[in-house]
Amino acid sequence: MTRVGVIGVGTVGRAVVDILKKNQSIISARAGETISVKSGVVRDLSKLPDLSISLSQNPYDVVDDPEIDIVVELMGGVELPFEIVKKALQNGKAVVTANKALLAYHRYELQEIAGDIPFEFEASVAGGIPIINALRDGLSANHILSIMGIMNGTCNFMLTKMMNEGAAYESVLAEAQALGYAEADPTFDVGGFDAAHKLLILASIAYGIDAKPEEILIEGIEGITPEDIAFAKEFGYTIKLLGIAKRDGGEVELRVHAALVDEDAMIAKIDGVMNGISVVGDRVGETLYYGPGAGGDATASAVVANIIDIVRSGKRSPMLGFNHPLEEGLRLKDQNDIRSKYYLRLQVLDKPGILAQITSLFAHHFISIEAVIQRPSETECAHLLFATHEATERSVHALISELETLESVLETPYMIRIV
Amino acid sequence: MTRVGVIGVGTVGRAVVDILKKNQSIISARAGETISVKSGVVRDLSKLPDLSISLSQNPYDVVDDPEIDIVVELMGGVELPFEIVKKALQNGKAVVTANKALLAYHRYELQEIAGDIPFEFEASVAGGIPIINALRDGLSANHILSIMGIMNGTCNFMLTKMMNEGAAYESVLAEAQALGYAEADPTFDVGGFDAAHKLLILASIAYGIDAKPEEILIEGIEGITPEDIAFAKEFGYTIKLLGIAKRDGGEVELRVHAALVDEDAMIAKIDGVMNGISVVGDRVGETLYYGPGAGGDATASAVVANIIDIVRSGKRSPMLGFNHPLEEGLRLKDQNDIRSKYYLRLQVLDKPGILAQITSLFAHHFISIEAVIQRPSETECAHLLFATHEATERSVHALISELETLESVLETPYMIRIV
Repeated sequence: MTRVGVIGVGTVGRAVVDILKKNQSIISARAGETISVKSGVVRDLSKLPDLSISLSQNPYDVVDDPEIDIVVELMGGVELPFEIVKKALQNGKAVVTANKALLAYHRYELQEIAGDIPFEFEASVAGGIPIINALRDGLSANHILSIMGIMNGTCNFMLTKMMNEGAAYESVLAEAQALGYAEADPTFDVGGFDAAHKLLILASIAYGIDAKPEEILIEGIEGITPEDIAFAKEFGYTIKLLGIAKRDGGEVELRVHAALVDEDAMIAKIDGVMNGISVVGDRVGETLYYGPGAGGDATASAVVANIIDIVRSGKRSPMLGFNHPLEEGLRLKDQNDIRSKYYLRLQVLDKPGILAQITSLFAHHFISIEAVIQRPSETECAHLLFATHEATERSVHALISELETLESVLETPYMIRIV
Repeated sequence: MTRVGVIGVGTVGRAVVDILKKNQSIISARAGETISVKSGVVRDLSKLPDLSISLSQNPYDVVDDPEIDIVVELMGGVELPFEIVKKALQNGKAVVTANKALLAYHRYELQEIAGDIPFEFEASVAGGIPIINALRDGLSANHILSIMGIMNGTCNFMLTKMMNEGAAYESVLAEAQALGYAEADPTFDVGGFDAAHKLLILASIAYGIDAKPEEILIEGIEGITPEDIAFAKEFGYTIKLLGIAKRDGGEVELRVHAALVDEDAMIAKIDGVMNGISVVGDRVGETLYYGPGAGGDATASAVVANIIDIVRSGKRSPMLGFNHPLEEGLRLKDQNDIRSKYYLRLQVLDKPGILAQITSLFAHHFISIEAVIQRPSETECAHLLFATHEATERSVHALISELETLESVLETPYMIRIV
């Protein structure tokens, strides 16, 4: 009999307790023994429905309980769960977490502290999709060439609505908030930070690369307009918020941003709140994993799978899937060196000679233009929409800075990368 | 240092040797020790390129070699590999196989013989896609409600060509043969048998159900015509060869057949030689796994991943992911009780009263018609294309038998299920 303690009994925690109870017979058959939740930790004891487990407000009641074998951490946050999880490992308890922020900052320290003690985190990336499982175990024979994924359901829901209905950003955000897909302060999702945490976890497993969120390119979807959506449609693209990890010789580039994606690509077909992650290995080629990236039951499905795996298989270490340096000397690529194709939207004064002036600036920065569309906007104004050939971030940002200084350019140019 | 012996050094076997050599540094970092191929077994010694491993023609040279830790079985066939693999397990050696036929017939005996000795078989289903991994470990918290997948790249290549180009079956088969996607005798692929083997393996893991290929519904894609393709397009479907496992109360239905699939479904978007498998769990909802289902490198990627997992994690048992009965009392559903919607194509004499005669037979069998299209074919003939509401296999087969006896029906009616 394995006993579990759940720290943080919210939507996911309640689903974990419920699955372990309702699916008990198949879970015992798979794990080889009975698994039950002994106790839980909550912030507010008065708010909870009856779960027939003992509850406390002190995480250490679980972490220091000698009868608990596996600690499930679902509190959220970074430093407090780090302390609690460390103590659990020091007490010899296996740990399962869904906390991506904790891992985005402390995954290597945790791997070191865990040693041979199982530490699992499937639910931290893409909820119910077993992507950690696939990447760490299923594709372990491969050098990973790239990971490209829709890792945030909130953004994908909003962008899908904008693409399908031509709706404006503000109205789809309000709808996402009304449906409970977006928080009152949506920054963590729409700003790309949530996706960035997940990307860092996947990049560790694939490349052994250590990076913090502050070190990588993170942009959100806030500035996207119906104009951009219309351009995307016209040129056979859809717009997605992507997390991208890409091997380039001795460097790995890591980035989260909105992107124009060829509408025929598998990743472009992932709509609504669903997540999908494409992984290219040097031997296997492209594989893709699709499913619900959030929600109590889907996330709990991943948490419970980790618990079963720990009970069934015992030692499942090392935590990130490797111990020695995985890719000797591999470095994080300087953001300025990242190459991409770009889409640029400029609002300009609608008078003769403007296009010539602007295109000469593109040429000055050695950025080659693939297509340009001029569309009237308000009186005496026009939108210029550019698609470029491949260029570096450095040169595109330099171009944008210079464009901004022109009197005829009426607002900061808006840029979306083309993947 | 772990030593591997490879029995069957064909396309996949050579790729296994090559990956273990070329990707040695990441593989050691992930496995925690060096893995090398010590020896291999081939049918014809004269045919092999230099692989710098010792080669023999006798499988027992590998199986009885005390220096070999892991036996990789890539021979194909059923009874001979069964004997060889049994001996390997009795000698205490871990086994990795890509042999779906072996597992379709002997998976439960092998699980029993293996006991605590690792026995892995990721490559046996859908080549490079880690679907066994996902189903056995990633989704283990779930009752599996259904599995629906494109598990045969040959058929999917052919059907995609037929859909996109309106080409005839015979010409795409010839093209598939020329490209090496189909064998000279293509029956195993186009008849659905390959997909059935894979489906049985997945159904074991999901449901603990024991069934042999002979006990389940297996049909292929041989009879599909451009007429059917045109009908599918007109009604918003695509045609796929699907392997389907579906829970229905105390029964599981297992079936492989061509199907009309809603063109907006994710599974409909999987084209060409690619495979894709959708799994619905009671808690996680739908997840989908996409990637290359065949090819030396992709299949070897799965074989080597299993090897790494055995070295890294030690005990990974039980083989199928459960020991006790997984779903107590769950039975295989009688094929006749399977319910579906159906598409029927009839060639009939083009004269008054025929449609009335035929539709009254549908009514007699309580099969309700959703749509019917009449198309002129040769002189004095017409094609009648029907889409029905849900009915049982029993009633549809009875209807077809009765239709066949009509003088005005010129050939055996052709049926495709609608999913």
